[in-house]
This record gives sequence, C-alpha cells and structure tokens, in this order.
Amino acid sequence: MIVQDLIEVRTAGRGTSDITNAVQEIVARSGIGTGTCQVFVQHTSASLMLCENADPEVRRDLERFMSRLVPDGDSLFRHDSEGPDDMPAHVRSVLTHTSLGVPVTNGRCALGTWQGLYLWEHRSGGSRRRILVTVQGE
Amino acid sequence: MIVQDLIEVRTAGRGTSDITNAVQEIVARSGIGTGTCQVFVQHTSASLMLCENADPEVRRDLERFMSRLVPDGDSLFRHDSEGPDDMPAHVRSVLTHTSLGVPVTNGRCALGTWQGLYLWEHRSGGSRRRILVTVQGE
Amino acid sequence: MIVQDLIEVRTAGRGTSDITNAVQEIVARSGIGTGTCQVFVQHTSASLMLCENADPEVRRDLERFMSRLVPDGDSLFRHDSEGPDDMPAHVRSVLTHTSLGVPVTNGRCALGTWQGLYLWEHRSGGSRRRILVTVQGE
Repeated sequence: MIVQDLIEVRTAGRGTSDITNAVQEIVARSGIGTGTCQVFVQHTSASLMLCENADPEVRRDLERFMSRLVPDGDSLFRHDSEGPDDMPAHVRSVLTHTSLGVPVTNGRCALGTWQGLYLWEHRSGGSRRRILVTVQGE
Repeated sequence: MIVQDLIEVRTAGRGTSDITNAVQEIVARSGIGTGTCQVFVQHTSASLMLCENADPEVRRDLERFMSRLVPDGDSLFRHDSEGPDDMPAHVRSVLTHTSLGVPVTNGRCALGTWQGLYLWEHRSGGSRRRILVTVQGE
Repeated sequence: MIVQDLIEVRTAGRGTSDITNAVQEIVARSGIGTGTCQVFVQHTSASLMLCENADPEVRRDLERFMSRLVPDGDSLFRHDSEGPDDMPAHVRSVLTHTSLGVPVTNGRCALGTWQGLYLWEHRSGGSRRRILVTVQGE
C-alpha cells in the first residue's frame, strides 16, 4: 500500500518548524500499520532534521552552530544573487537532510521518546515550503 | 513483503560499533531478495554512518575531526543540562545520519566492498541504543 | 513493484556529475507511478546530494566550502595511505549523503523546480563509481 500527501509550511525566517504531528496524521490516515515513511522537502535552501524535542534551546544552539560554521556573506562564496544568506542556505541544506526515512510501527512513525521531526528554514526572509510525505507498507 | 526488527547496542562511550552483520542477518532472515533496507536509530545523541571498513583508523580520524568541529563545552552552546558533551552530541547527530537507506540485492544489503554500517555513539558516557531495521521488497 | 538498476559514472577528479536524467530514466522505465526512489552510491569516498541546478557556481562554492572545512593533508588525520585527499574524502562523504530517498509521483522523481541529483567525487584522481537505484511503488 502506498499513500502520498503534501505538507505546506509558511516560514517567517531562519529557524525550525515542528512537523511531527502533521507527518503522524498522514501516517495515521494512510491505514498502514508497518512500513516506512519518507519525508522529502522540495527545496535546496530549507532542510529536514530529527532533533531533541524537549528543550527548544537545542534547536537555537543548532542555529547558532550553523551560523558560525557557514557565515553569511563569507567571501569564499561567489553565488550571492539572492543576498548574503543565499549560498549559506544551500550549504546548510547539503550538510543536513533533504530526505528523511522513518520506520512505521503500529500505524505511527516509530520515533524515539525525544525525537521530533523539524523543517529547518535557512533563508533569512522565509518562504513557502513544500514537503512530500510517502508512506509505504501494509 | 515487510519485515521489521530491532537491534540493541550497549555503547561504552564515544566511538563506533559495527552493525553490518546484525543488519545483514535481519535481511537474510526476512527472505526478501530485492528491495530496500531502512536502518533508523531512535535517539538524537547517537547516529549512523556508512564508512570505510578496512582500517579502524578511519573511524578514529572521523572522531578526531568531529571533536574539533564541535568542541565539548563550547561557549556557543546554552543547552548543557547533561554536561559539556550534551549539545555536541545533538550537533554531531544532525551532521551525520539518523536514518540510512540501503538497497537489497540477492537477499543481502548491496554494500560496496569497503562499506560498513556503523552506529556512532556521541555521548562520552555511552548508553543503550535502539536501532529499528525495516526491510521492504519481494 | 520493485525495479533495481545500476548507473556507472567515470569521474575525472573532484567535482559533481549531474545524474538527474539517468535516475529519471530508470524511474520512467520502471512503470511505477507512485512510490519512492532510493539512490545509493557503493563507495565511501564519493557521495550524493540534492542541490540547486541552475547556477553551476553553487556547486563550485560547495566544493570550496568543503575544501576549507576538511583540508587535504590535515595533520589531524593519521589514515593517509592513499594520499592527502584520502581521509578528507571519507569525512566529506559522511558529512553529505551515501543514500538519498526521493518520492515518485506520476512516474517521475518529484523533485522541486531547482533540485538536481548529483554524484560528488571527493578523490582528486577520480574513479569509476557505481550507483544503485531502487524504485518501489505501484
């Protein structure tokens, strides 16, 4: 059995959006009990991650780490047509994940207790982001 | 056909554990000849990687690289409730992989000659780690 | 339904090869309309990425970023049996992707407008690279 559905998120700027519940709802509606769930973001300047879900400071620390590792306006970068955050957004996406696979057990994504699914917006201005979810199983 | 099974690993501290054989055994027992195998770690301070399997120095070099890139006790980090290795463990997990997909061919994970599957523990004290393996195919 | 096929790429040295069309052709030939496509590189010194496909300068900037982040001949590394680019190639592979999952919709990989699929060669001498593509769905 295969079910495919779309999540759309309007981001306001850099930072993370919790998409755990939106993904779990698609899995629940699919009627699939055991299998896999693929989460895929159709962009190259936003990405996905599985991250600790209890303390929001963890995600702010991740943002601080990435801002230091891939500085905006770095003179290393030549592609800057959309501004100083343009190329860093692409680098941050490649260093994290465009696609995540999650197991499905008993009709739900089998996440660990402290795991949440997040969309990570890397453009300072934000954007509208499309996430395709494909559930396969029986 | 879908088969799902669990691998539990007790880690003693930072470093890698070879889970290639444990995953290959699940694939062999599944009876699936062609398809995919999804390996998923249910934690946010341990991760997965496919890595060169001949010289263990490669994995020690990776550990040295990560220790330099994401230093323990870095003053950048505010989330440190579980110690100086707490936030670095989350960053290292996001920079590597919570989930890996591997093709299944002739009843085995179709790894390259030099590819091994490893669990990477990022907490200095170690922990008990759960890895869910889902094999799909025919 | 499951279809598995192989792409072989001869690389001339560090840099990226566009494999989008080769993957799309396998998906089209599979006859699968809805499902998932798994792209897997059977090596530990070359990797995969989904990247902006309009301006080739983006991929050259990514190469420059990686060359700075993981310098060839870094004295941190002890594994150097195949030269100064040996260990950096393994690190670059772990920081990017050995395996990518892409949704299949209407008989094609459902990539975003600006997303391309690339093989990233990390060895300065290049090599022959094997990429296994597995399409699952209905």
